[in-house]
Amino acid sequence: MQVSELNRHGFTSGILPAQCPSRTVLDHVTSKWGVLVIIALSQGDLRWGELRRTVEGVSEKMLAQTLRTLEADGFVHREAQATIPPRVDYGLTDRGRALAERLLPLMDWIADNADEILSV
Amino acid sequence: MQVSELNRHGFTSGILPAQCPSRTVLDHVTSKWGVLVIIALSQGDLRWGELRRTVEGVSEKMLAQTLRTLEADGFVHREAQATIPPRVDYGLTDRGRALAERLLPLMDWIADNADEILSV
Repeated sequence: MQVSELNRHGFTSGILPAQCPSRTVLDHVTSKWGVLVIIALSQGDLRWGELRRTVEGVSEKMLAQTLRTLEADGFVHREAQATIPPRVDYGLTDRGRALAERLLPLMDWIADNADEILSV
Repeated sequence: MQVSELNRHGFTSGILPAQCPSRTVLDHVTSKWGVLVIIALSQGDLRWGELRRTVEGVSEKMLAQTLRTLEADGFVHREAQATIPPRVDYGLTDRGRALAERLLPLMDWIADNADEILSV
């Protein structure tokens, strides 16, 4: 194993060691629904119902939990408008957009290759 | 939402719809240990014991299960040598390297930003 390569990819500052903050953030952003919510919001702000329809298959409970985690990590912002009925929009913060930029090439590649991968 | 953007990122060919192959592949490659195994092997082939030490915290059972899934998807190859004692090396296939190329920028970003993200 080449140490310089490991350093270049930040492993010594903690991707692989357990108990490191990077493991926690990795869990959050690669959670089943976390990825899909970030990708959905990368196209623009969405209301709760739109988000739930776009991220097909997510339950109300899991969507709420995923949004809470992503909000706590500063990836997603929630904007409530005092209209009747109240309207709540979800969108990416600058940090969320930086994350989405790194997730989209991965998602594109998966979308392009999934059929072939599963047909082995 | 801009349809052209959605198309550009392959969503209409199935990242977000449930029941699509891309969801299955996404689950495999973003599983807690799947990411870490791919990243560990991106530095070069490793033997079982080396892999287990590098991916700190993984149990024997979870490592075996993760490797089976990644092998079935064609990301990882397993090479057994008929030595005494027998020696088994794990490495990335071409497909695994293509995946690693898309995962490393994400991992780098997470490593660089994890402390700040969790200190909010």
